[in-house]
Amino acid sequence: MGLMEFFREFFLGFWDYETPKIMVVKNRTLGVIYRMVQFLVITYFIWYVFISQKAYQDIETRPESSVYTEMRGVGILGDSIRDTTEYVRPSEGGDVISTILRREVTHNQTQGTCAEHYNVPNANCTTDADCVMGEMDFDGHGQRTGRCVPYYNYTFKTCEIRSWCPIEEFAAVREPALVQAVNFSVFIKNAIHFPKFKVLRGNIKPRKPKKLLKCNYHPDTNPYCPVFKLGYIAEQAREKFSELCRTGGVIGVFINWKCDFDVDPSECIPTYSFRRLDLRKNLPSSGYHYWFAKYYIKDGLEYRTLIKAYGIRLDVIVHGQAGKFSLIPTIINTVTAMTSVGICSIICDWIMLTFIDKNEVYSERKFDDASKDPRPPTVTEITLTSFGSTHSDLSDGIPL
Amino acid sequence: MGLMEFFREFFLGFWDYETPKIMVVKNRTLGVIYRMVQFLVITYFIWYVFISQKAYQDIETRPESSVYTEMRGVGILGDSIRDTTEYVRPSEGGDVISTILRREVTHNQTQGTCAEHYNVPNANCTTDADCVMGEMDFDGHGQRTGRCVPYYNYTFKTCEIRSWCPIEEFAAVREPALVQAVNFSVFIKNAIHFPKFKVLRGNIKPRKPKKLLKCNYHPDTNPYCPVFKLGYIAEQAREKFSELCRTGGVIGVFINWKCDFDVDPSECIPTYSFRRLDLRKNLPSSGYHYWFAKYYIKDGLEYRTLIKAYGIRLDVIVHGQAGKFSLIPTIINTVTAMTSVGICSIICDWIMLTFIDKNEVYSERKFDDASKDPRPPTVTEITLTSFGSTHSDLSDGIPL
Amino acid sequence: MGLMEFFREFFLGFWDYETPKIMVVKNRTLGVIYRMVQFLVITYFIWYVFISQKAYQDIETRPESSVYTEMRGVGILGDSIRDTTEYVRPSEGGDVISTILRREVTHNQTQGTCAEHYNVPNANCTTDADCVMGEMDFDGHGQRTGRCVPYYNYTFKTCEIRSWCPIEEFAAVREPALVQAVNFSVFIKNAIHFPKFKVLRGNIKPRKPKKLLKCNYHPDTNPYCPVFKLGYIAEQAREKFSELCRTGGVIGVFINWKCDFDVDPSECIPTYSFRRLDLRKNLPSSGYHYWFAKYYIKDGLEYRTLIKAYGIRLDVIVHGQAGKFSLIPTIINTVTAMTSVGICSIICDWIMLTFIDKNEVYSERKFDDASKDPRPPTVTEITLTSFGSTHSDLSDGIPL
Repeated sequence: MGLMEFFREFFLGFWDYETPKIMVVKNRTLGVIYRMVQFLVITYFIWYVFISQKAYQDIETRPESSVYTEMRGVGILGDSIRDTTEYVRPSEGGDVISTILRREVTHNQTQGTCAEHYNVPNANCTTDADCVMGEMDFDGHGQRTGRCVPYYNYTFKTCEIRSWCPIEEFAAVREPALVQAVNFSVFIKNAIHFPKFKVLRGNIKPRKPKKLLKCNYHPDTNPYCPVFKLGYIAEQAREKFSELCRTGGVIGVFINWKCDFDVDPSECIPTYSFRRLDLRKNLPSSGYHYWFAKYYIKDGLEYRTLIKAYGIRLDVIVHGQAGKFSLIPTIINTVTAMTSVGICSIICDWIMLTFIDKNEVYSERKFDDASKDPRPPTVTEITLTSFGSTHSDLSDGIPL
Repeated sequence: MGLMEFFREFFLGFWDYETPKIMVVKNRTLGVIYRMVQFLVITYFIWYVFISQKAYQDIETRPESSVYTEMRGVGILGDSIRDTTEYVRPSEGGDVISTILRREVTHNQTQGTCAEHYNVPNANCTTDADCVMGEMDFDGHGQRTGRCVPYYNYTFKTCEIRSWCPIEEFAAVREPALVQAVNFSVFIKNAIHFPKFKVLRGNIKPRKPKKLLKCNYHPDTNPYCPVFKLGYIAEQAREKFSELCRTGGVIGVFINWKCDFDVDPSECIPTYSFRRLDLRKNLPSSGYHYWFAKYYIKDGLEYRTLIKAYGIRLDVIVHGQAGKFSLIPTIINTVTAMTSVGICSIICDWIMLTFIDKNEVYSERKFDDASKDPRPPTVTEITLTSFGSTHSDLSDGIPL
Repeated sequence: MGLMEFFREFFLGFWDYETPKIMVVKNRTLGVIYRMVQFLVITYFIWYVFISQKAYQDIETRPESSVYTEMRGVGILGDSIRDTTEYVRPSEGGDVISTILRREVTHNQTQGTCAEHYNVPNANCTTDADCVMGEMDFDGHGQRTGRCVPYYNYTFKTCEIRSWCPIEEFAAVREPALVQAVNFSVFIKNAIHFPKFKVLRGNIKPRKPKKLLKCNYHPDTNPYCPVFKLGYIAEQAREKFSELCRTGGVIGVFINWKCDFDVDPSECIPTYSFRRLDLRKNLPSSGYHYWFAKYYIKDGLEYRTLIKAYGIRLDVIVHGQAGKFSLIPTIINTVTAMTSVGICSIICDWIMLTFIDKNEVYSERKFDDASKDPRPPTVTEITLTSFGSTHSDLSDGIPL
């Protein structure tokens, strides 16, 4: 065959359409099983993949989010007034904000020498010989001077240390909890941007009147007012506020955006949920507290007020997801659905060939053994034979 | 059949190769449709999936990123000098950094009693009877003492409160904006690590001379100099700097790494984009501001300077993605591509059987009804018949 | 055909089962290739997809995590004691915490006029004419007054500036490094919540005795004690602690949760890894440092102590992933596996038709050309021929 002919044949063959040959089995049982499996697969795809999982949408799962928080409320504790400047830290209003609910204040600490706390290992002493000069215990508060001194105004003695004096454990004043904080409110402004769809949404209604910060969030009546009382947050997180005042705690504020931009984007409203994030199973370190100090210079000497603060830390965590119809995922998932329907054939073939096909009729018909003569004994040999042998045992030649 | 025989047969059958039987339809219309659909599918896979989406690569989308920020610049406001220590908060140089552009300062506040602001509900009074002792208004500044006092040096009276006095709304000094801040620059150092590929990249050119911090970023001429003037950032975010000075604002600095480690990794350079993140549609709470205080002790009394700071908060957000050739995604996507080509058959079968196959020729040929005799009336019956009836109407017995 | 009949036929046909016809090729070579390819595909799916990648599980990759950090340890530097309040910033114990290892302290800065540093461009002068009044150099420390003054107690002169005086470069006192910090320890409490599986886990053993904070982490003996000495962290990050003291550095603390909730959830223990995150290839800006100030009022004048702090910043980064058996991914992946087995046919068909099928026997058998007569020469023509060719051309009546 010449090269031209080869190409000609190839070109002609290229435009042929090839389709698999199909055997139709008119077996009601098998047909019902086949259609049922097919129905299940199609239902799964239509209901779960397309309707429930919205597989026809292009999904954006990592939006850009910006959080701004602001606390409001004034508390009074004895003669002392607490406003946000004092109980909110850090002040910059980021996505982590903590409110001080209870303080243990050590006033007028200065660097000097004083008695070590009696709980520190080897701190109790009777003579200077019990105290090693220059030693520093990891659990202690400073470096030992080598002297044994009376423990403040008590009768027993402990080793003297160079430290910020007096030590916190001795001198700290435990303030009562700021129970009014249950009514403090936190305003959480959140803007979210979906770069794939170029949509920017906020959790505040645009053009809201000036009164905004006076509202309180309610999922049904006030979904556009992201102002939450601390008491509401604790309640939603199923925590007792009084317990939080005692030990402190970290509460996650989850802002969930689940937007479908195929419908009106104004329906894209976040939901809020609250969950305590730190563990609290009677752990030694349960709760949330931290230390900070205010520094002063008095008569040329540096003093500090050391504050151990117990409080609520709010971690604002934004989850965002948005979807919009897109051709490519739709096609991909439709193709997958169609391909998966093919799985029915595998199941039904197995049923057919194993349970129904007792006489191997279907098997014979489905599988064409290439090593056997593909067709029934053809007329030539048979008729020729029959002519010779006067119509005898022709049935032998009849195929199954 | 014995068990041995069964296994023998199974073993022999196991090594048989099975392939579907195919019907070739020499129909030019159908062939053209078939090849066109096939061409579309293959084009989609090659162009979109493999070239555009780089489906042959293993993708790392959640790299580990570290951001270090540092502000530079000195501003002067009247007699007062502002350096970074004063206008940058927090100072630690993390991924959120704010610059104070304008301040409202309330000097020398101390805890005491003073007149409530006249805007607070029920704060205006004429006699002590108008003021309920111990009452605290949520929008107020403190707890009412029950007395009605003149509003500072004005003639009208408001209820006296226990608070940090004088109250901010009365005593705050509004400073002008630090317009020179437009030339302040922020240096953003970012290191990114792709654990899957064990590649560490930074946004600074290694072995850069000491002059680094004196350059300014330009996407074309200076892509390795991550130093941005605040004015440049505002401009890129399409914001007016003067407006930002007035209300403050949160601007996202997006560092986008999109790296292809199949090519030279030195081409893995980030791009920077800037977008205002807070909403600003004339909202009551638009912009960015926060309060902080500096505390002093004077004559044993605690004083504070309360500062309401308006400024720009920069949120540095790093997006990273890297890809590298990997066998498994390549195989998976190739298989998916091949499988998807099968979708052409479904479409063309439908066209063939519905539109082209008018005479049900193809249908008859494609579908083999297992309940009918699979072959033409074979020689036996025909010849036997023909023998009996003297060769008459044989054509009746001839199959279609 | 009536409409009723049409629907009846359609209804009957609907319950037919259709299955492709298969050609069996008893060719040992082909069979072996076929089974080998099939074996490879099945092995890949079972071993890689199902066992290694756990494709039968529903995966949660974005858990909610909460980090609380606390530093411990006391250091001594000359006469001065450093406790956590002083060397830890910020104090709130979030996921970014920095420890000051070395300080350069500028005491008693106040706003006034003093000599500019001699390194600033054009700062050196001989007469007032060299200094432009009101000029501000970007690299300088303040605004020039227009006078040329002696550089502190030196003999040469520089331009006078309005600034925080004295300037840091001249007056800063470089303290030695706090080498004892190598023994400071950081306690990292991490709680992780997998919303999909509603599982909350912490990195501390519940009901641990009070001694918790006295332990030290060890992957084998103490996996539930998340207390790390700074020296251990530096060592794990392969950094020299003395070098970190000199330049500072950012170290990432990676907490990796990889949980399989099909087994006992108590086996869900995190692993910790440490890596230096900032670049350090002799860059001018390598390391980690920041400035902060303590403010004082003395005689009505505001003073500050400016501190340039070099230290270690720990960025705690939590990676979490959990899986649990789920029906849907199992089905999807099983279907994909079965579908992918089909790829074997494509390969083997190609081999068969190209290399083995020299005589086009298989090809002839596999492909049924619809334009040719589908069957062997049938009985009619043959028998008629054989009869002698009396009873003329019946063959005309034979269909194609």
